[in-house]
Amino acid sequence: MSGEIIRVGIVAKSGLLAAADHLDQLASWLRARNIEPIFDTDTGKLTKAAGETRSRNELPSNVDLVVVMGGDGTLLGMATRTALAGRDTPILGVNFGSLGFLTEITLAELYPTLEGVLADTYQYEERRMLHAVVRRHGRPDKAGDVLNDVVVTKAALSRIIELDVTIDGIFVSAFRADGLIISSPTGSTAYNLAAGGPILHPSLPAVVVTPICPHMLTNRPLAVSDEATIEVCLRPARDVEAHVTFDGQRGFPLSGTDTVTVTRSPLSLRLVKAPARDFFAVLRTKLKWGESTAQRR
Amino acid sequence: MSGEIIRVGIVAKSGLLAAADHLDQLASWLRARNIEPIFDTDTGKLTKAAGETRSRNELPSNVDLVVVMGGDGTLLGMATRTALAGRDTPILGVNFGSLGFLTEITLAELYPTLEGVLADTYQYEERRMLHAVVRRHGRPDKAGDVLNDVVVTKAALSRIIELDVTIDGIFVSAFRADGLIISSPTGSTAYNLAAGGPILHPSLPAVVVTPICPHMLTNRPLAVSDEATIEVCLRPARDVEAHVTFDGQRGFPLSGTDTVTVTRSPLSLRLVKAPARDFFAVLRTKLKWGESTAQRR
Amino acid sequence: MSGEIIRVGIVAKSGLLAAADHLDQLASWLRARNIEPIFDTDTGKLTKAAGETRSRNELPSNVDLVVVMGGDGTLLGMATRTALAGRDTPILGVNFGSLGFLTEITLAELYPTLEGVLADTYQYEERRMLHAVVRRHGRPDKAGDVLNDVVVTKAALSRIIELDVTIDGIFVSAFRADGLIISSPTGSTAYNLAAGGPILHPSLPAVVVTPICPHMLTNRPLAVSDEATIEVCLRPARDVEAHVTFDGQRGFPLSGTDTVTVTRSPLSLRLVKAPARDFFAVLRTKLKWGESTAQRR
Amino acid sequence: MSGEIIRVGIVAKSGLLAAADHLDQLASWLRARNIEPIFDTDTGKLTKAAGETRSRNELPSNVDLVVVMGGDGTLLGMATRTALAGRDTPILGVNFGSLGFLTEITLAELYPTLEGVLADTYQYEERRMLHAVVRRHGRPDKAGDVLNDVVVTKAALSRIIELDVTIDGIFVSAFRADGLIISSPTGSTAYNLAAGGPILHPSLPAVVVTPICPHMLTNRPLAVSDEATIEVCLRPARDVEAHVTFDGQRGFPLSGTDTVTVTRSPLSLRLVKAPARDFFAVLRTKLKWGESTAQRR
Repeated sequence: MSGEIIRVGIVAKSGLLAAADHLDQLASWLRARNIEPIFDTDTGKLTKAAGETRSRNELPSNVDLVVVMGGDGTLLGMATRTALAGRDTPILGVNFGSLGFLTEITLAELYPTLEGVLADTYQYEERRMLHAVVRRHGRPDKAGDVLNDVVVTKAALSRIIELDVTIDGIFVSAFRADGLIISSPTGSTAYNLAAGGPILHPSLPAVVVTPICPHMLTNRPLAVSDEATIEVCLRPARDVEAHVTFDGQRGFPLSGTDTVTVTRSPLSLRLVKAPARDFFAVLRTKLKWGESTAQRR
Repeated sequence: MSGEIIRVGIVAKSGLLAAADHLDQLASWLRARNIEPIFDTDTGKLTKAAGETRSRNELPSNVDLVVVMGGDGTLLGMATRTALAGRDTPILGVNFGSLGFLTEITLAELYPTLEGVLADTYQYEERRMLHAVVRRHGRPDKAGDVLNDVVVTKAALSRIIELDVTIDGIFVSAFRADGLIISSPTGSTAYNLAAGGPILHPSLPAVVVTPICPHMLTNRPLAVSDEATIEVCLRPARDVEAHVTFDGQRGFPLSGTDTVTVTRSPLSLRLVKAPARDFFAVLRTKLKWGESTAQRR
Repeated sequence: MSGEIIRVGIVAKSGLLAAADHLDQLASWLRARNIEPIFDTDTGKLTKAAGETRSRNELPSNVDLVVVMGGDGTLLGMATRTALAGRDTPILGVNFGSLGFLTEITLAELYPTLEGVLADTYQYEERRMLHAVVRRHGRPDKAGDVLNDVVVTKAALSRIIELDVTIDGIFVSAFRADGLIISSPTGSTAYNLAAGGPILHPSLPAVVVTPICPHMLTNRPLAVSDEATIEVCLRPARDVEAHVTFDGQRGFPLSGTDTVTVTRSPLSLRLVKAPARDFFAVLRTKLKWGESTAQRR
Repeated sequence: MSGEIIRVGIVAKSGLLAAADHLDQLASWLRARNIEPIFDTDTGKLTKAAGETRSRNELPSNVDLVVVMGGDGTLLGMATRTALAGRDTPILGVNFGSLGFLTEITLAELYPTLEGVLADTYQYEERRMLHAVVRRHGRPDKAGDVLNDVVVTKAALSRIIELDVTIDGIFVSAFRADGLIISSPTGSTAYNLAAGGPILHPSLPAVVVTPICPHMLTNRPLAVSDEATIEVCLRPARDVEAHVTFDGQRGFPLSGTDTVTVTRSPLSLRLVKAPARDFFAVLRTKLKWGESTAQRR
């Protein structure tokens, strides 16, 4: 399914000193198999094993696999960059500390999983992404692709903001709220969940629009096809300051009558899955959902 | 799209005396166009205009269109019967009192809408349905098709029930709760909404599994593909009494280790839509969501 | 604070075989201190150590302390009985399995806690209770005192019920819902929490009225003074079957225009607290709330 | 109950041109009764009737009654100023547009209500307030009194913030969230409600601590006595920017290990109530809660 793996990019959470030994070990393990480890610049500083290093932006287009060590935030920071490289490069997320929704491979599983990836006997999961365009006075101003979510929020000192939402050109509602989350299935277990949104199975071709602390108590999360075009328009008002953020990684101020348009992205992310851990097992672990009991049939 | 309309079935909410005049008027209107009105037996008693009558079960297979006067409950009572008739017979729901999610045509819109239906210039909406099978000791015991939802609940005097859920054979979680709702997109605005579930656009090929008052606060509504097979198994326990209901219309007691399996139904319902009212307009009206304001662009 | 302790009542969860050894041990420990253990009839069958036994109803008025081994449900079953005995008899709840909100003393803590209780150096917590009266045709029909909650619910096969609520004679609202929970602060962490209600600190002189799956999405939990008189009136309707339950322990069918009136009970329960576990520590443990971290000041 | 009313302060929502005629009319009505209207400076610009004007800060200490025309936000802006004047000056809130929780008197009710206030036959409602102190490096840095709430939130572009909460010196939990609302009963129907908090009856001596979009799904609103001292400590972290706001009217950036301490304020606000509208009637109107029906007993 995937091409030969000759170079592996390695990215650790910034300043994660606990990763240093594992970085050395991983580099050795790869070199012993004639695979070249390439570290991102910051990660390289954590290890003596670093040979070639690249910036986080350049890394994905120069490797055949990206290994991320840290939490979901670190993987999220590499997701768009890796998808943009356009080489179908898979990402393998190893968690440090508690299991993540994206970094769901434990240190103990790292090498067996890598063996499977190298042997090309491995299954990947394709995660759909979303594309957002911010328009000012009708002209595209900013754009980006996200794995998790596009979020429009008021600034901390602003009052409530008012957002007009249309889907495929049809007016949905004006939302008076702290903000609005437009989330992919992958993002549904992130900020969307904290805001009261539902969990969408990663394979569902859907997007969920979830208001954050809506003034109108009947406003509820709304799931629509990911083929839909979702447009969020800021209503101009005095003293209102709003922002849009992409995956919680990049943010831009909005003003006047700026609009944010979200569609399905042509990009997707190839995620290396834990061999023994399906989506529901991750939910049970992360959310402490009830396990099966011994008495079960 | 639809065949010629020669006979129209008419069903009013049981005991809805306010419908009597409208029933007479509708019968006359149809006869003036050489269309035969056929009332269900109960509805026939409300009007002097009744000619032929049929039971609610027999009606759908003997008519080319079903007109329901009442609320969503009345339409729901005819939904499965109409879908089962296998003739692609459309249903037109006229609300008495407040607008419904299903009975979204007002009395004022009834005749213009009927004109459109008769002229075959009309758009229908196909609403997907779900199929449920209750198995006892592994053998099918009860089965049914629903437009809205399949609900497993504890009896009022029972303690919490425990339900093991699997999706496509993969264990999801044990839910300790008052019950579980498995809802279609059409049903998402009904009981599912009251239980904290999300709204699914009617066109989304999804099903949402929503726990009712779960003991585990991290349990959340979960939306999956409607191609999935969802199995709910009651865990045997002392003093536990549970029931399953189909569309809130029919109910059966569950016992021992009964399982309820829900899949997409081969049936679907053809709904006559209000000409000037899209899904979001219905949400705004029913849920008092914010309308657009004059100051909008 | 408490009188001399000469007899200790012992109640274990029905059929809790795991408790047998501990029951023997507790009986010996007490006898060694010239204190007489008295078992409830069922619990007595679990142990060879049983001397005198009493029914659960009779036990509290014959002992100076009640020790409950099991979970919150077992303690709840003894709460009203103990309060009704009118002797200010304290209850000590020992959890088997996971920590409870009421049975918050671990097996390891049992004997040190008992030492403190016997030495009369111990602090108790007085938990306020509620009193409920069910009236039929205006006449009192049933009555009871609860530690946790009074719950009015629809039967599993019934549609939604409609309940008119007044507080101190002032109309609050008609609730169309699965039911309504009237909870004390102690009960706020039980069913109320599952239904979306807030946590009330045990010392707060309040009652919370929480609708269960309300049809009207703007209905929210409402906390009022526990000096208030809360009246819930069932609206008569066809095919509606409702029940009222006291602490989830006893239940009665409601019919016609039955009303349930809840006031503060003159009774209260004396709870033996874990020495090293305040209310918030129990919340953190039971609900997995965030602990303080090492990096804290 | 209240002293003689000689001067009435009048404040309209900034730029509310629709109020102009009513301001003229109110001034005439007062002068005809030998009462002097004093406008706040901005409001004075809306009317030709303005005689003496004062700033919003100075107004309350120079009048015997404050009439606010606008919405809850306008009244909130005058609440602390009026309470701080220390003269027990009542506030009368007249709503323009939709009924408010605080501005619950309609234009039609204004003059009859004023007659009652002048005749001293009127009931007021005392609304408790909260006091907040922001400490930096242990030293008080900012302080204020609020009618509704003290809110700590992350900045729009920040990640989640972590807040350690203690109540009366006892550690409650670390909250990872968008923020935290500490609300009075009066504020419980404002931001607290949008964030999922309960409604507290205005007479309840309580405060509710409600996390905003908590990362930990089991975090829930927590109501405690308003005699409690609630301390919120920001955990220092990279890239975290937080703010505290008082009644959504004034805001300050937080940094480092700043703490916000909330206690009951010695101040309270005297609110002129609508004669024919109790708290529950306002809930029914504002939240569209179910009214009683004709069929009731």
